[in-house]
Amino acid sequence: MIKVALDAMGGDNAPGEIVKGAVDAVNTSKECFVYLVGKEDVVNNELSKYTYSKEQIEVVNATEVIETGEPPVMAIRHKKDSSLVKALNMVKNKEADAFVSAGSSGAILVGGQVIVGRLPGVERPPIGAIVPTDKGCVLIVDSGANVDARPAFLVQWAKMGSIYMENCLGIKKPRVAIVNVGLEEEKGNQLVKETFPLLKACDDINFIGSIEAREIPRSGADVIVCDAFVGNVILKLYEGLAGTIISKIKGAFYSNLKSKIGAMLVKDSIKSTLKTMDASEYGGAPLIGLNGLVVKTHGSAKAKEVKNSILQCVTFSKSNINEQIVESLSHMPELTEE
Amino acid sequence: MIKVALDAMGGDNAPGEIVKGAVDAVNTSKECFVYLVGKEDVVNNELSKYTYSKEQIEVVNATEVIETGEPPVMAIRHKKDSSLVKALNMVKNKEADAFVSAGSSGAILVGGQVIVGRLPGVERPPIGAIVPTDKGCVLIVDSGANVDARPAFLVQWAKMGSIYMENCLGIKKPRVAIVNVGLEEEKGNQLVKETFPLLKACDDINFIGSIEAREIPRSGADVIVCDAFVGNVILKLYEGLAGTIISKIKGAFYSNLKSKIGAMLVKDSIKSTLKTMDASEYGGAPLIGLNGLVVKTHGSAKAKEVKNSILQCVTFSKSNINEQIVESLSHMPELTEE
Repeated sequence: MIKVALDAMGGDNAPGEIVKGAVDAVNTSKECFVYLVGKEDVVNNELSKYTYSKEQIEVVNATEVIETGEPPVMAIRHKKDSSLVKALNMVKNKEADAFVSAGSSGAILVGGQVIVGRLPGVERPPIGAIVPTDKGCVLIVDSGANVDARPAFLVQWAKMGSIYMENCLGIKKPRVAIVNVGLEEEKGNQLVKETFPLLKACDDINFIGSIEAREIPRSGADVIVCDAFVGNVILKLYEGLAGTIISKIKGAFYSNLKSKIGAMLVKDSIKSTLKTMDASEYGGAPLIGLNGLVVKTHGSAKAKEVKNSILQCVTFSKSNINEQIVESLSHMPELTEE
Repeated sequence: MIKVALDAMGGDNAPGEIVKGAVDAVNTSKECFVYLVGKEDVVNNELSKYTYSKEQIEVVNATEVIETGEPPVMAIRHKKDSSLVKALNMVKNKEADAFVSAGSSGAILVGGQVIVGRLPGVERPPIGAIVPTDKGCVLIVDSGANVDARPAFLVQWAKMGSIYMENCLGIKKPRVAIVNVGLEEEKGNQLVKETFPLLKACDDINFIGSIEAREIPRSGADVIVCDAFVGNVILKLYEGLAGTIISKIKGAFYSNLKSKIGAMLVKDSIKSTLKTMDASEYGGAPLIGLNGLVVKTHGSAKAKEVKNSILQCVTFSKSNINEQIVESLSHMPELTEE
């Protein structure tokens, strides 16, 4: 049984959707146990709405809440009895295998590193976001943690991302690419130019070279590495543009009577198609390289994403990803002087 | 009459679509004159397929062609009789007001700066790409020229982009934003953190602060500034993702008989909606800040984009954008020491 410490108070839709996500998860899988960490009375009140296996959910009282706007370091230091800090401590103390929260990104990042701690050899844990593509999905590392990155970080992320995709999503020999502005060798900014030969020298990843952003949704790679500024732009533009186009198309459906009738007929096909492009199907974004599993879901996460994030923890915890990461990072590429 | 020197040999669909674009442009507007620069016999052969006003098109012979893969500096230096170099020289010598090409980006960038030259005060001319949004369009500067940028460059691009959108697209007091990973003041990489206060200190632009990539397609700003690495990622992801989603939806339409019938009914509404999200409606991307107008269209540009790029040159040349740029750059913000 994999034990997940869930921050019941974090996110725009807490605690309602978070609690519902926990219930849906335990009703889906017998392999998970959820600690709902938050204000006891509020959480119990939500829980009372549902039927679920009582052996799989336990409420852990936490009297404080870290709000989105709070400075992360101060919040982690001072709010010892917050749901976020308490749940992270459960992972640190091995009472739980994983942590899931829709709360403040900054607090999760800081708390993950300070409380749970990094694996040996990991310089900067990245956030790995999974986004859908036309034939599957792609992992973006780093999608939010380290905006000014160094080449060595990207090399570590490539290795960690590769291990993650192989073990969590079952993709054999994941194709790793670096985000670039062109495919020619001379293209790229300083960071990409310095990182490229290092990635080429890694013999434990399937590095396929540069990828232009155009090819990301066309399944051009399984893992893409970039600094977190670029990764975050990709992740957020993905969400924004997909939403805009879909709402434009919906608008077109209702623009006149003829298309309204047509819309009724295409509705089912469109729905199942759009589901394949829905990022929440893949659960949350893991902070990779910590001494335990820390997963951040969208601040706006609803029950489905929370549920999928919990189930994702089960897959992660059953494979020995962290051991593989430690082993892999002990062999870093070195370039011979030219 | 605005005179445009068109590189008839550049791009994946040259010379066929390029020549057709020129014909469509002169058939649409009486205000443009197009010099079709390229291999005389080939261009004349294409031209002979169409009916058009002979007073608006003239073929200029150029015996060489710069290919996409060629190292730009070498190509510009050695292929003096290439369509690209010859057409740029016509702008330099004031025989033409503007240059349009679907050819090698690198060669256009280098050639634009070396042959046409920068306006006084301009440090690094950016490429300004226009992409559609839900309510209109947005200018991305820089979308391809300077991947490792300095704060002062971004300030210049904000001013130039603002002048461009106000004069070419008629947007009053364009909202200028800097691409960032969050809205809070402490967010951003080094470049953004250093640029933000400089933009804030500019009193001749309508700076609205940071924009997250999610808000770009939602018309969150009229001009967005970023280094060309980030800008190029935005531009290409826009193209790739829009294409992927649209082809997924088309696939859904044809997945079964019911949806096929529905598709026939919604077709017209969808088409006009998708047209509003079509980047080629806005023509090519200008290289802003040169001593003449240089416009780069997509390598894959078809006649419509070539036509719109030529018509865009008319609007540009009729307003005194370059004079305004020189004036604006003479007042750069300075930060007082804290």
